[in-house]
Amino acid sequence: MPSALVLIADGTEEMEFTITYDTLVRAGVVVQSAFVPESGGGSETPVSPPAAKGSRGIRILPDLYFETANSGPDKFDAIIIPGGAKGAETLSSSSEVQVLVREYIEKKKLVGMICAGSLAALTSGLPKQPLTSHPSVKSTLESEFDYSEDPVVVSGNLVTSRGPGTAFPFALKLVELLCGPEKRKEVHAPMVFPAGTPW
Amino acid sequence: MPSALVLIADGTEEMEFTITYDTLVRAGVVVQSAFVPESGGGSETPVSPPAAKGSRGIRILPDLYFETANSGPDKFDAIIIPGGAKGAETLSSSSEVQVLVREYIEKKKLVGMICAGSLAALTSGLPKQPLTSHPSVKSTLESEFDYSEDPVVVSGNLVTSRGPGTAFPFALKLVELLCGPEKRKEVHAPMVFPAGTPW
Repeated sequence: MPSALVLIADGTEEMEFTITYDTLVRAGVVVQSAFVPESGGGSETPVSPPAAKGSRGIRILPDLYFETANSGPDKFDAIIIPGGAKGAETLSSSSEVQVLVREYIEKKKLVGMICAGSLAALTSGLPKQPLTSHPSVKSTLESEFDYSEDPVVVSGNLVTSRGPGTAFPFALKLVELLCGPEKRKEVHAPMVFPAGTPW
Repeated sequence: MPSALVLIADGTEEMEFTITYDTLVRAGVVVQSAFVPESGGGSETPVSPPAAKGSRGIRILPDLYFETANSGPDKFDAIIIPGGAKGAETLSSSSEVQVLVREYIEKKKLVGMICAGSLAALTSGLPKQPLTSHPSVKSTLESEFDYSEDPVVVSGNLVTSRGPGTAFPFALKLVELLCGPEKRKEVHAPMVFPAGTPW
């Protein structure tokens, strides 16, 4: 069974977090969320994670407190970095998260970033390649990457996307890559997207 | 400033809950969530609500514990009932929730139901009118209502919808009805829906 770790912090965009987590669970992926504190986390003594307060005030209880030892590519097949300005700042500026992003890429595991979460591609020092993000951080990223405005951009094992409005196609692309196109179809149908939805 | 109460229970579909709550907050609506226990709630002594465990395992801390006194149409302009089979069963079978649904309708406040949440229209004894729901509960509802397969159905002040895949158009319709079409456009743009998205 594939597995995925979804990072979360205070200020994470709760729709991007929830749509990704929930859709992966529907596909049978074993999903865990890990709380990254403003200090960056990674090496604390294990504690129960506090509720993360999302960008629009929804409080979510993460499954784990983020530690390097419980979060690596030996433990999960994918790591996901959601957006939300403040949450993405915490996640992308954590040196421990940056190390993990490089490790996942090196081990050919999936790395997903959506919205302002794509800033982590820059802070982790990933090489120039196709990428997208929320328009609000485009100016920070466009000189360092082959910036695209496609809803979902797959570049090797880096998958990037744009915002809450692209979170479903982002999550479904992750399902497709982790579980195959048949599973994507199986998950898609009971969600009842309106006729004409372009994903 | 318009206000809305979003009900939540163990087993609530967390995407439907989160997309509705977050989108309304983006529009400036004052949103609160209230936890409904399996016993139905409504008259308990005020307590801190427990985390609600969503249908796919995401734990959400509600803002309030559901009590009739804090949840009526004198307090909010809209009440929303999300889906998720087990959560919708708890919400729709609560006699206190059923009373509130009728009060909101009588007071010309908005009532939103999505997915299996539409079962509350039946249990609350609302008169025959246009309605939609998740396909999984269509057979229970179609003889009692003018059943539609449109993504969002507005019937007077009852707004119904189908599933996670229709949660964005459902939430945006609530924004339009509570805050006007201009606010809907303002909220829509930064969500970055892909070109061709039919809402």
